[in-house]
Amino acid sequence: MMQHSEKKLGKLISDLERDQITSIQQTLTSLHPSEIARLLESLTPGKRKIIWQLVDQDDEGDVLKELVEDVRQNLIGEMDATELIAATQDMELDDLADLLVDLPETVTEQVITALDRQDQIRLESVMSYDEDTAGGLTNPRIISVRRGITIEVLMRYLKRLNKLPEHTNYIYIVNRNDEYLGALKLVDLFLEDKNKPIETIMDESVKAMLADVDVKQVAMDFQNLDLISIPVIDEKNRLLGQITVDDVVDVIQDQVNSEIFNMAGLDDEDDIFAPVILSTKRRAVWLGMNLITAFVVAGAIGLFQEILQQIVILAVLMPIVASMGGVAGNQTLILVIRGIAMGKIQRSNARKLLVKEGSVALLNGFIWSIVVSVLTVVLFLDADFQNYWKIGIIVGAAMLLNIFASAIAGVAIPFLLKKMGIDPALAGGVLMITLTDVLGFITFLGLATLFLLG
Amino acid sequence: MMQHSEKKLGKLISDLERDQITSIQQTLTSLHPSEIARLLESLTPGKRKIIWQLVDQDDEGDVLKELVEDVRQNLIGEMDATELIAATQDMELDDLADLLVDLPETVTEQVITALDRQDQIRLESVMSYDEDTAGGLTNPRIISVRRGITIEVLMRYLKRLNKLPEHTNYIYIVNRNDEYLGALKLVDLFLEDKNKPIETIMDESVKAMLADVDVKQVAMDFQNLDLISIPVIDEKNRLLGQITVDDVVDVIQDQVNSEIFNMAGLDDEDDIFAPVILSTKRRAVWLGMNLITAFVVAGAIGLFQEILQQIVILAVLMPIVASMGGVAGNQTLILVIRGIAMGKIQRSNARKLLVKEGSVALLNGFIWSIVVSVLTVVLFLDADFQNYWKIGIIVGAAMLLNIFASAIAGVAIPFLLKKMGIDPALAGGVLMITLTDVLGFITFLGLATLFLLG
Repeated sequence: MMQHSEKKLGKLISDLERDQITSIQQTLTSLHPSEIARLLESLTPGKRKIIWQLVDQDDEGDVLKELVEDVRQNLIGEMDATELIAATQDMELDDLADLLVDLPETVTEQVITALDRQDQIRLESVMSYDEDTAGGLTNPRIISVRRGITIEVLMRYLKRLNKLPEHTNYIYIVNRNDEYLGALKLVDLFLEDKNKPIETIMDESVKAMLADVDVKQVAMDFQNLDLISIPVIDEKNRLLGQITVDDVVDVIQDQVNSEIFNMAGLDDEDDIFAPVILSTKRRAVWLGMNLITAFVVAGAIGLFQEILQQIVILAVLMPIVASMGGVAGNQTLILVIRGIAMGKIQRSNARKLLVKEGSVALLNGFIWSIVVSVLTVVLFLDADFQNYWKIGIIVGAAMLLNIFASAIAGVAIPFLLKKMGIDPALAGGVLMITLTDVLGFITFLGLATLFLLG
Repeated sequence: MMQHSEKKLGKLISDLERDQITSIQQTLTSLHPSEIARLLESLTPGKRKIIWQLVDQDDEGDVLKELVEDVRQNLIGEMDATELIAATQDMELDDLADLLVDLPETVTEQVITALDRQDQIRLESVMSYDEDTAGGLTNPRIISVRRGITIEVLMRYLKRLNKLPEHTNYIYIVNRNDEYLGALKLVDLFLEDKNKPIETIMDESVKAMLADVDVKQVAMDFQNLDLISIPVIDEKNRLLGQITVDDVVDVIQDQVNSEIFNMAGLDDEDDIFAPVILSTKRRAVWLGMNLITAFVVAGAIGLFQEILQQIVILAVLMPIVASMGGVAGNQTLILVIRGIAMGKIQRSNARKLLVKEGSVALLNGFIWSIVVSVLTVVLFLDADFQNYWKIGIIVGAAMLLNIFASAIAGVAIPFLLKKMGIDPALAGGVLMITLTDVLGFITFLGLATLFLLG
């Protein structure tokens, strides 16, 4: 039965506290490289170095590949050339390609020289593509054969290879120019008559993907088509390799992390124990941006000092208007950002969505503005207060306006940002909060000035 | 070459606008059930019904399974018993199990009766497990054989089956009590000598997973161990079936969606075109909760009416303090929530994290409080204002306190909520914003009362 990684990690951390080196080494050998990577990420930099010394050299390359950027850079920085070259041995070529980018140039050269000629060519073809494209995810170690041979010949060939590359569910068939023709399910090899030429049982419905497709699209296609693997070709239809689902799962995880982090104003902060100075710097950028918007908001309030001076209760009530607009706007914003990310919302259905979100906002705005009006009068105003019922109505009206405007903005902002080439998840939240604050304070204090200032 | 789903969906939506039924049907046949599901989700309820009529009956079951809850319920409600029974034919048993839960009882009975005896037993075993456990994800249609037979016998058996179940990469080996022993890589079957008994080439390192494991753990294990499939057993070690990665990818997607939605106060709103009344109701819950916290915040400000009356500029400046605390607190909160979700943060390393986040907050708080103090004095106060430099210092000091306290709360809140059995992603944000607002206003106005009133 499987032991869960969480428990294993827990045990390791407590062993580390109690300096049980032998027990740690035992645990480490039982862990998958990804699990070791998660563990290293859970540790403070000091402990990380201790554990890293204890990791088996054969695992080092795969662990490095699974680590988040910051932690990887950190550990690579601590290793000398010999260690690095040893760590990269026996890695899958696609993983190696990803790792090489982070290594010192001298090491990279030595690693490439050590490969056989065929792998050198393969590695070059993969490394020529950007990390964020299908080509960058492609593993060139696949089995591809020319059409024309029989199943029997193919099977003899496979037997001679003895060990097939990881994740070989398909044999790919190419013509003499290496152009992709179709795939052969491994299973079908022993269900069919051995004298048939392989192309007769080839599955032409296994479509190849172009190497320059964006990884986001790759992830979406794997999800939509329930793929386990897909062949990848260059623009001349030449077969480059295949992408397998385990790498796509990592891509999905990375995308989600960066979407969630960006929403919270965290700039891809993937190392939870990043050095304090580094974290401070990264977060300072967002705090600084927020500071600008906070001063804009303060400036908006500043326009209304006269009425605030006269009716101080307005200062008490104004955050209610802003915050309700913020929540409603954010609900719409996130729905739209997610919908766009998942391909459910496009320009063609955006108008319908605007109508729906606008209606929801009007309805909710109406209901809650009545509640707020009544509660405000009951809780914060008393009958000898001049115009007490007017203030109640103004709070409600300003809130209704703010909620409605925020919903419209929630649909519009992601499309505007996308058009400007800015990631909506990155800047949408800041824009929304500034807008709802400014709008909330201005409508509320503006209405009050209009109807109450004597 | 593959055509990208986004383009296909775009074309279909525009065909629909122009009533090109034949063209729509052509597109639909070229789409994978998941793609059809995404498409249906992108449409308004009216158009959804039109397209649903055009979907091929053989695809209907798989499309229903891929749809988000709300939309699925909706379409099922429109279908009569005959249509539903026809739609469920030829579905994978694990998918069927998921779908049956949503069907009327009479239909469910008829569907089960129509299955052969073996499939009935298999379906029952899967349906006895909760949807949120490994058992609920298990597909019982696998190939399992008793130990003792030779590779040759096994290969003859497979040939007789002719068509192997989808995603058969392993043959599972059991003993006479159906207890799981190990797995046999399909590839190895033709690399090895045919007279060997199968258990000699069996891979015992393929560990099985218990059926009652939580899906979150399943998803984490698939990611950590780069799994494509895993055998599932009951508590008596009996083999139930296997989980394949394509279903796990869907689980990951669902989890992420609900995490992001919950953060934004969207209660798993999966149908972007849900009826206005329904959407309004769901979001009203969150708006109502926010209203309570907004009144608490207003109440806090209300305590300081005297000082606000005397120095109205405080009302202008107070949102700056609250909002900077909010951003800093949210940065820590999201880092911790994600870290817990990914198994990187546990109680054992929480204290270290608290120290690190506290230090980052102090450093950033210190830097930005100086900036804010200076800017406040320059932008909002003038020299003939009494105590103008004191106000500048008070804004900065209150902000520093608020940023520091928010960071501490950002680490503490997720652990407290988890202990109380509440999902941190669900309630963490609301708690954080209330806290930073209340704290921000109280420290700022409190300090002002202390040093300025008189």
